[in-house]
Amino acid sequence: MSRLDEIGEFDLIDRIAKVTPGSANVIEGIGDDCAVVRVGERVLLLSCDLSVEDVHFRRRYASAEDIGWKAAASAVSDIAAMGGRPLFLLIALACPRLTAVDFLEGIYKGIQDVAQRFQIAVVGGDSTRLHDHVALDVTVVGEPVSNRWLLRSGAKSGDLLAVTGPLGLSSAGLRALERNDTVPIALANAHLRPLPRIAEGQWLCERPGVHAMMDISDGLLQDAAHIAKRSQVGVDIKRALQTCTSELRSYCDAQGLSCLDFCLAGGEDYELLLAIGPEEVLETYTAFAATFGRDLRTVGVCTDAFTGLRLDGCEPLVKGFDHFRS
Amino acid sequence: MSRLDEIGEFDLIDRIAKVTPGSANVIEGIGDDCAVVRVGERVLLLSCDLSVEDVHFRRRYASAEDIGWKAAASAVSDIAAMGGRPLFLLIALACPRLTAVDFLEGIYKGIQDVAQRFQIAVVGGDSTRLHDHVALDVTVVGEPVSNRWLLRSGAKSGDLLAVTGPLGLSSAGLRALERNDTVPIALANAHLRPLPRIAEGQWLCERPGVHAMMDISDGLLQDAAHIAKRSQVGVDIKRALQTCTSELRSYCDAQGLSCLDFCLAGGEDYELLLAIGPEEVLETYTAFAATFGRDLRTVGVCTDAFTGLRLDGCEPLVKGFDHFRS
Repeated sequence: MSRLDEIGEFDLIDRIAKVTPGSANVIEGIGDDCAVVRVGERVLLLSCDLSVEDVHFRRRYASAEDIGWKAAASAVSDIAAMGGRPLFLLIALACPRLTAVDFLEGIYKGIQDVAQRFQIAVVGGDSTRLHDHVALDVTVVGEPVSNRWLLRSGAKSGDLLAVTGPLGLSSAGLRALERNDTVPIALANAHLRPLPRIAEGQWLCERPGVHAMMDISDGLLQDAAHIAKRSQVGVDIKRALQTCTSELRSYCDAQGLSCLDFCLAGGEDYELLLAIGPEEVLETYTAFAATFGRDLRTVGVCTDAFTGLRLDGCEPLVKGFDHFRS
Repeated sequence: MSRLDEIGEFDLIDRIAKVTPGSANVIEGIGDDCAVVRVGERVLLLSCDLSVEDVHFRRRYASAEDIGWKAAASAVSDIAAMGGRPLFLLIALACPRLTAVDFLEGIYKGIQDVAQRFQIAVVGGDSTRLHDHVALDVTVVGEPVSNRWLLRSGAKSGDLLAVTGPLGLSSAGLRALERNDTVPIALANAHLRPLPRIAEGQWLCERPGVHAMMDISDGLLQDAAHIAKRSQVGVDIKRALQTCTSELRSYCDAQGLSCLDFCLAGGEDYELLLAIGPEEVLETYTAFAATFGRDLRTVGVCTDAFTGLRLDGCEPLVKGFDHFRS
């Protein structure tokens, strides 16, 4: 009889997906950033995201507002990953009986700050007792902006893989916060206050040359492996294409760490990872920079020469984080 | 600085609702069984329901399938409470690393059994680690069947309050299971395998004489108090109108307990509680019995002679259950 720590999160999801029947109104079920469903002639995007104390955050360094912000932002980021527009949030909150009401109001304040920034309405939820920790589940309901949405499964051999911003800051921030290091503000902010790339996702979704998209929550290698698997292509991530921000580099230099490790395997940056046809790259990168004042940066390539994920042509030793594995 | 056990669940909800801005697309926000929202010209019903191990269930007496069934059924019951049709479920699951995969598959099997029974599609979710317990959040997306939905707030002075089925079985079942008593099968089933009253809710929603509705999850007195508050009427529940099933009566007689206490304060029966205009009662009760082979039963009356909840005209000492109060 196998245990969860032996099979891991992604095998569990595969098993659940296999025994879950499809339905005429389900366009995309389990396995992408959002479910895509039909209600009459409307298409909806549905997703939820769990945040658990001492797994996803610690009260020692995350304020109540930080906890609420991040829980909401990580759910909303799943809508960004499809190129959609978030509309409504439901908040399920479990916490110990003796929790201070101020603390809970702070969590809702953080959630409300994300909601206001992206014009989302908080419409309901549930609350109950949990024994020793605070846990939050944020459900988001959104919709496609035009009649298109981007899946993990659309990448083609020859596509380049690109990201919408710098990687590794959030995981370096987490390390510094966990160790009580002096935490550079850019790293702490990246970890505690991630910003879902809603506008960027919608813009990319309007370009037919962008074939697949997802948000980077588990780390570049892990998430690129999801695109490879769902698109049935090989993905080769290139070390030489990774770039570090000056803040990440300073922190890593001071600590004797490798920037590259954070860029490749660090999760929770919530930047978007996309596959784009090579003939579209120049125009798209130029227009993206002109629109958003930040660069799309190539990090790898899709190929039919092999399947699955490689790093400079070789099988990587570690891909990223799995909550359930030891 | 107040703590959650001092203010309780319902005051927390009031506080959150007060600081949550409305929006043009939100028809009903926080405070009813479901949120009612608009997406283009479609109306959606949204709700979520948390189930936590050793708060809502124990593995000692609930099988994995029972746990999944009840978590899904209690969420789906919120759609029944509005008279709606459930369409989609999202499942957020938090559990310890060492959980047996068979056990988790059993939970999903129980959820899937509810989904199939009510033709709902399970479309996604999230999974993560929790320290010592299993917790589930089930989000349900539904829609009104015609262009009507029933709120807690529509009851009028003079309306009768009625229920769609017997009360108290689930809480008596819980008591027996907790105490390791010999558990009558009807009571165990009522607690472990509640049946959302979807068809009944839709049928009642089509009758203009039914003015308000909700599901009974916290107990008759507690839930009748919600209708009183949201409808700004007085509600008087009558002891003499409560009826016990023979199974509940036998159990209570054998244990020296009062049937009435279970009927009035016992939660989780997931029957529907409705307010109906007195001139509609005869025809509606008759047609309901002919359609469903079970009776609508009057349990109280709405009045403008006072506000809030009374039991035979007096303030009740105990209304029901609050997760956060000591």
